[in-house]
Amino acid sequence: MNPDEFRRHAHELVDWMADYMERVGELPVTPPVGPGDVRRRLPASPPAEGEPFGQLFEDFQRLILPGMTHWNHPGWFAYFPGNNSPPSVLGEMLTATIGAQCMSWVTSPAATELEQVVMDWLRQMVGLPDGFVGSIQDTASTATLVALLSAREHASRGATGLRGMSGGPALTVYASQEAHSSVDKGVKLAGYGLERLRRIPTDAQYALSPDALERAIEQDRAAGLEPACVVASIGTTSSTAVDPVVEVAAICRRHGVWLHVDAAYAGSAAIVPELRKRFEGWEQADSIVLNPHKWLLTNFDCTAYYVRDRDALLSAFSLTPEYLRTVHDEQVVNYRDWGIQLGRRFRALKLWFVIRSYGVEGLQAIIRQHVTLAAELARWIDANPEFERMAPVPFGLVCFRYRPPGLAEERVDTLNERLLAAVNATGRVFMTHTRLGGRYTIRLVIGQRATERKHVEEAWRLITEAAEGVESLSP
Amino acid sequence: MNPDEFRRHAHELVDWMADYMERVGELPVTPPVGPGDVRRRLPASPPAEGEPFGQLFEDFQRLILPGMTHWNHPGWFAYFPGNNSPPSVLGEMLTATIGAQCMSWVTSPAATELEQVVMDWLRQMVGLPDGFVGSIQDTASTATLVALLSAREHASRGATGLRGMSGGPALTVYASQEAHSSVDKGVKLAGYGLERLRRIPTDAQYALSPDALERAIEQDRAAGLEPACVVASIGTTSSTAVDPVVEVAAICRRHGVWLHVDAAYAGSAAIVPELRKRFEGWEQADSIVLNPHKWLLTNFDCTAYYVRDRDALLSAFSLTPEYLRTVHDEQVVNYRDWGIQLGRRFRALKLWFVIRSYGVEGLQAIIRQHVTLAAELARWIDANPEFERMAPVPFGLVCFRYRPPGLAEERVDTLNERLLAAVNATGRVFMTHTRLGGRYTIRLVIGQRATERKHVEEAWRLITEAAEGVESLSP
Repeated sequence: MNPDEFRRHAHELVDWMADYMERVGELPVTPPVGPGDVRRRLPASPPAEGEPFGQLFEDFQRLILPGMTHWNHPGWFAYFPGNNSPPSVLGEMLTATIGAQCMSWVTSPAATELEQVVMDWLRQMVGLPDGFVGSIQDTASTATLVALLSAREHASRGATGLRGMSGGPALTVYASQEAHSSVDKGVKLAGYGLERLRRIPTDAQYALSPDALERAIEQDRAAGLEPACVVASIGTTSSTAVDPVVEVAAICRRHGVWLHVDAAYAGSAAIVPELRKRFEGWEQADSIVLNPHKWLLTNFDCTAYYVRDRDALLSAFSLTPEYLRTVHDEQVVNYRDWGIQLGRRFRALKLWFVIRSYGVEGLQAIIRQHVTLAAELARWIDANPEFERMAPVPFGLVCFRYRPPGLAEERVDTLNERLLAAVNATGRVFMTHTRLGGRYTIRLVIGQRATERKHVEEAWRLITEAAEGVESLSP
Repeated sequence: MNPDEFRRHAHELVDWMADYMERVGELPVTPPVGPGDVRRRLPASPPAEGEPFGQLFEDFQRLILPGMTHWNHPGWFAYFPGNNSPPSVLGEMLTATIGAQCMSWVTSPAATELEQVVMDWLRQMVGLPDGFVGSIQDTASTATLVALLSAREHASRGATGLRGMSGGPALTVYASQEAHSSVDKGVKLAGYGLERLRRIPTDAQYALSPDALERAIEQDRAAGLEPACVVASIGTTSSTAVDPVVEVAAICRRHGVWLHVDAAYAGSAAIVPELRKRFEGWEQADSIVLNPHKWLLTNFDCTAYYVRDRDALLSAFSLTPEYLRTVHDEQVVNYRDWGIQLGRRFRALKLWFVIRSYGVEGLQAIIRQHVTLAAELARWIDANPEFERMAPVPFGLVCFRYRPPGLAEERVDTLNERLLAAVNATGRVFMTHTRLGGRYTIRLVIGQRATERKHVEEAWRLITEAAEGVESLSP
């Protein structure tokens, strides 16, 4: 395909892309396909000869699109949002075209320096003090692993990286019972071992209990173990609970333990002044993760990872073989030394486009609107005696269950499973579930860019209608 | 920005993108900017109000583009190639627009199943036997870390993931002195410790010595250590040396050690039948990495990671908290369990477009042409008494240095450093360097999609002309 053929096909795609943005709300949020349905329609072997692009694009529309879940549907209330936006997509188009690999300053100077600039913009936007430096990682899972590895090296003063963990002290990690599964995964991968992760009890609002944390640290130290890292959450995945970071930070300081703050979803809300108080204490963390690819309208992947001590990060990750050495190494940032991957995409461009296109005030208005709608939905739930709200609503997530008066508790979980399945089967909305205090809980998160009040009203209507239906079913 | 504004701006961008593809060869490969030049032209704080896209796009062209290194320039001879291609960019455009996050089957069924299909297509293309299953990872660094973690769990029968490495046996890793730095990084991050990595000597052609490998394994075992993983390279970074994988695999089998094959760059060449023999033995590996984002015209990031035993991978990486559980989990592939990251982009689409657009034969022809040109350049170097070829040329990389007869060896390194700087300063080409046997070596890799014979001729002309210049400089 030469540039002129590309030009022609790309123009066709642009019209399809703009149409998609316009009509995504008319598609079913989740596709009506079962396991294997897409695969069995695709050839088992690759073609020997090239095919015209028209055929590929037709197959994309005919075979792939009907099997996609639409994360940018205004009826997206599942998991956490995974937003893109028109300026972000424009940024991705340019990034793909240049196709630079941004491992080192010299392999794309402007990409490196733009990343420095937008990471500092975002630091100012979320109110972190000067001194925190950021880099773009791919996901919060990776950033949390990077934090756990940095904490490991910090606790052992670099000995584990050099001599290995075998024969070294047993290092321990602390997080609440509600912390994200990426903490378990990171603890496992970083070599601490899952049994060295202390899951600290939470209070009635699912926030970590600082007293229990301090007791656990003291007990471990008394037993000859070496506490290395605490992961505090601002906005847990199940219920967006906010750990008491001020107290947790004081404990970490007293005991010389690395504090990592997981604000993967909620962190973007720190750009809204009146929500800033939920983030108190995070400025005392050693590392912080927040995902512009969730709530800040920037295409996945774009995770912002901030650290207070750049040298602690570099000492854990920097390695420069001869074939990567350049004359500028002393004067520049080489982001390959800031994480796991050597290769890196030019991800700063889309975030730059988003921040400039919406402006800080525009982004604030969108998040403020989502939080307002969530509070409103919470009031509807509270006002309905057949429903029970399961957790506070500090951000955009509302946790609830259907619990008509008189229904035996042992039937409630099953009823809510059915209710969720029935609502999702409409194709108009997509919600997911969790368990809070052992109870099956429906999660409805308002955070998709195009979601308006009418979509939340529709969701609530579908829920209440489906509730009438499932209640009449036999147990 | 509403969909219609997006439509308008995206059409403008498409014309720019097609123009860029046409004229990238006229731009300087590396930009004439110094550290800080780009950054100091950008505002230190984000704008409060949104700006029109026209302004953003103008700033992109005025401030960012002149600071970019052009990886898709036909004069790209540096590192390894980082190719994109028109169909791949078209794929990225659709991926960005849909903006799906492909962590689980249910979060985008078609993306998961297309990834299964194209990974199997690629398996067939490179001649790996049925039974190998693949997933797309972001980079080879990550894939090699995944392999080292899998090997760790395999060697300890899952004990390290559960109980941690502290208190466990000291596990060791083996790779040649020429293996990529990602092995060091992975060994450090996975908790083995850099001192547990045995760098095995190589022969005169920079390939791992199997006898030395077996001795090292036996010595470690005799000393009470536990050999866990061997990383063999097919195409090392410095010189594309090919380790004797058949012998290495036999050693690994004898000693029950995990074999990971790093074919990050060269692996794509396995699609060419007459080059397949360089890959003998890799079908006996436990895991293999190759990067379609290097030589197979697919935008970064797109790393193919193949394993023989899917369960060994899953047992190291799978974790399913309640909020990620779905009714389909037993019937489907959830790629979040195949690596480090939970979140995943829809990367299969661009690879599908590339394979179908070029066809297997089209891709073979491109790689064959690069290898042919590299062999031709090697002949020019061999025919010139002032130059010395430093390594065999099994793929597209030619390693050489300028060494005019009579020049004292202690001056050769400096002279070649200057030669490389002078050639790169022309802006017409970009090459990098390494050290082979301690000697400064220029690396010229032919692998950019648009590179033709005339570009290689130009590079050779620039080198020989610059050589005359630098020789006359005082030491």
